[in-house]
Amino acid sequence: MKKLFAEFFGTFWLVFGGCGSAVFAAGVPDIGIGLLGVALAFGLTVLTMAYAVGHISGGHFNPAVTFGLLAGGRFPFKDLISYVVAQCLGAIAAAGCLYIILNGAGAFSAEGPGAFATNFYDMPGYNNRSYSMGAAFLAEFLLTAFFLIVIMGATDKWANGKFAGIAIGLALTLIHLISIPITNTSVNPARSLSQALFVGGAAMSQLWLFWVAPILGGVAGGIIYKFLLQRSDNEVAA
Amino acid sequence: MKKLFAEFFGTFWLVFGGCGSAVFAAGVPDIGIGLLGVALAFGLTVLTMAYAVGHISGGHFNPAVTFGLLAGGRFPFKDLISYVVAQCLGAIAAAGCLYIILNGAGAFSAEGPGAFATNFYDMPGYNNRSYSMGAAFLAEFLLTAFFLIVIMGATDKWANGKFAGIAIGLALTLIHLISIPITNTSVNPARSLSQALFVGGAAMSQLWLFWVAPILGGVAGGIIYKFLLQRSDNEVAA
Amino acid sequence: MKKLFAEFFGTFWLVFGGCGSAVFAAGVPDIGIGLLGVALAFGLTVLTMAYAVGHISGGHFNPAVTFGLLAGGRFPFKDLISYVVAQCLGAIAAAGCLYIILNGAGAFSAEGPGAFATNFYDMPGYNNRSYSMGAAFLAEFLLTAFFLIVIMGATDKWANGKFAGIAIGLALTLIHLISIPITNTSVNPARSLSQALFVGGAAMSQLWLFWVAPILGGVAGGIIYKFLLQRSDNEVAA
Amino acid sequence: MKKLFAEFFGTFWLVFGGCGSAVFAAGVPDIGIGLLGVALAFGLTVLTMAYAVGHISGGHFNPAVTFGLLAGGRFPFKDLISYVVAQCLGAIAAAGCLYIILNGAGAFSAEGPGAFATNFYDMPGYNNRSYSMGAAFLAEFLLTAFFLIVIMGATDKWANGKFAGIAIGLALTLIHLISIPITNTSVNPARSLSQALFVGGAAMSQLWLFWVAPILGGVAGGIIYKFLLQRSDNEVAA
Repeated sequence: MKKLFAEFFGTFWLVFGGCGSAVFAAGVPDIGIGLLGVALAFGLTVLTMAYAVGHISGGHFNPAVTFGLLAGGRFPFKDLISYVVAQCLGAIAAAGCLYIILNGAGAFSAEGPGAFATNFYDMPGYNNRSYSMGAAFLAEFLLTAFFLIVIMGATDKWANGKFAGIAIGLALTLIHLISIPITNTSVNPARSLSQALFVGGAAMSQLWLFWVAPILGGVAGGIIYKFLLQRSDNEVAA
Repeated sequence: MKKLFAEFFGTFWLVFGGCGSAVFAAGVPDIGIGLLGVALAFGLTVLTMAYAVGHISGGHFNPAVTFGLLAGGRFPFKDLISYVVAQCLGAIAAAGCLYIILNGAGAFSAEGPGAFATNFYDMPGYNNRSYSMGAAFLAEFLLTAFFLIVIMGATDKWANGKFAGIAIGLALTLIHLISIPITNTSVNPARSLSQALFVGGAAMSQLWLFWVAPILGGVAGGIIYKFLLQRSDNEVAA
Repeated sequence: MKKLFAEFFGTFWLVFGGCGSAVFAAGVPDIGIGLLGVALAFGLTVLTMAYAVGHISGGHFNPAVTFGLLAGGRFPFKDLISYVVAQCLGAIAAAGCLYIILNGAGAFSAEGPGAFATNFYDMPGYNNRSYSMGAAFLAEFLLTAFFLIVIMGATDKWANGKFAGIAIGLALTLIHLISIPITNTSVNPARSLSQALFVGGAAMSQLWLFWVAPILGGVAGGIIYKFLLQRSDNEVAA
Repeated sequence: MKKLFAEFFGTFWLVFGGCGSAVFAAGVPDIGIGLLGVALAFGLTVLTMAYAVGHISGGHFNPAVTFGLLAGGRFPFKDLISYVVAQCLGAIAAAGCLYIILNGAGAFSAEGPGAFATNFYDMPGYNNRSYSMGAAFLAEFLLTAFFLIVIMGATDKWANGKFAGIAIGLALTLIHLISIPITNTSVNPARSLSQALFVGGAAMSQLWLFWVAPILGGVAGGIIYKFLLQRSDNEVAA
């Protein structure tokens, strides 16, 4: 049960901090934190919670990570559903708090691509560019695959495992530095779900991509690490 | 006594660095450090002092942290008052130095919401948004609660405790990335007090919120970690 | 073979993340990540992969690093060619993916200095400054030499080797903070090759400098560390 | 002798990276790294070299640090002069390389306060503010004093010494986040000397302050830590 609380609070923090920094602070004129600040915020939610509750639940905070670790042989199938449910509930609770605080300034809006930090594709977004469904899918797939390679590698028994929280958190920052202008960056189905629920419309109808691409990417990353990179005891001894 | 000196110098550094970066460097046109730089500065004050004097006093630098650790069973009641007094004195001394240096360029001003890095609510601030008292309270409460969850978790005996200074410092950066545009971010009653003393007016009349909300949030975070997340030896062994 | 996969995926990530952040996110008006975000992204590709696969291949992801470690006596000559080939293939695969995603928004362009994150010299770039071939060569040479001094030193047996991934990754961030406006920053022949292949023209005709200067600089750095800085057991014992 | 090479190369890197990022990259329109990027660059020069050569020389790279550690009882008097000379030579060599590269684009200028990253006071600088000599002295004194408190504390035998490179490097970033708009930030006499030599004029006539204030501040910080904070074995055992 404490594992599920850890996933609940960790995913709450991810959405509250990552999406919160976007809706409160990114667009302040002249001194706003911009996409760089949002990217840093997402990464720091994971870095901080990895050191805070990673020792309790493993610190996934993301259904794509849970699926990827399952595929990579690091997570038991029996806990899959309960982890994903706890993550989604934490994300939704955080989005609710963001909604309340934002409304405290009359500033909630569901208009336009990316409103309330929702993910999107095939609509004119940053730079007025409209990335196609295929491009968005490829980006989400690749980024989640490499996210899992970093996670699998940094927690490998041959790695400096104590640094995993830094490497994994900053990998999420890096992923956002690359791809906020493409899809507003998901790589996390729970984070996409929670924001879409409050916005509806296109955010809901496009939500499928931000479940399918990250989960497939996560599974691919887990498999790539396990079969192409992970060394056996014999290989290391050699 | 060395514990109290550590809290004094640590809180001095927090206010001098965090509020100082805001009043000197945030608003320089074109190349200013902006809210992202201020958020980083606040976090780095804690990260640096955690490694410098954390081994002496535990490295609170914040009355809400001291209350939260008390509630979480990690701090003795008998030291509560002396820690809080040392923190407030350090903060006030730092604000005095900021005042002197700022006046060396004739640049001190007490006008407008957030002047001299004071905290505020229900007044038009960043983005011309005015967050209500309730929204401000909820934000300060939640952020301090999660700050304490990170602190309690990162210093848990089952965690990689040597990384706690990084996790806790960067948690404070994250908190500022989210909430400077809401309340100018307190989560620290000593930091709010010191700036309000030099500005007076609304900064003083609104000061109560930046004592009550962070302390209640800190206590809530300490309790949540202790009862919902912290594992006993038996649970870990299982 | 797993070493070569590690170098392939690591260099893929370096180019996909570093050059990707530049082409997708640097120039978004008002909230773009700018050169600071790109510098951070390049560094984080190395930091994350160093902890993920550094224990497999050593984590070079850069032919100049491989040459430099060879010169410094830390890498066997017999693996030189296979490492460099794996790095170049990973870089080219990443550039191909960037090309596909960018074209998904019709946004690929080969026009102008630095298009598609290519390196360049003696052409008007940032600030409309045009750095001469000699200045570009000196900058690339010096920066790669110091990159190797950091790598050799941080992985020295007398150093805190577990922190090497942080030091080396952030050294690459620092290098980009200095020199993106000079040459778009190479210090990595594989990264320069992959982008030039898709752009052609001047990017190809100037490519020689971004192989010669970084490799010579890397060799110089390896030699400087080995002969001027590295201490023998006797010296440490003294 | 290897200690002196370590100080030479380390201080070279500090000036080349810190002042270099300022003169090449800070002011690029729209996407420049700004003062935040320069602050990060200065800190990363120390962080990277601390892990690279800190195990050789202790990693001072700054005469004020050497004086402060002497005052704090952590450095032998007999090595004082040779360390300071090595630091100044490294700084001057770096400034020379910056001068050559900058001239490769015809972009060197000695005009105006802060030209070539020189330090200054009592002249209209950032925000058109002119900080008085007294304000500048107080800022440099306080910041160097706290820099030494962080250095003394993070390398205390009771601290997590392996993290000292991170804490000390990021302390320098923090110091720059606060004070670039005040004096262009020195806290390092060697760094001030090297830039002033190439600019002359007011940069030379004001140079005394950037030797006296940092060295006095460093000595004060060393003494404060030693007498008010550092615990004896008996105190820790108690």
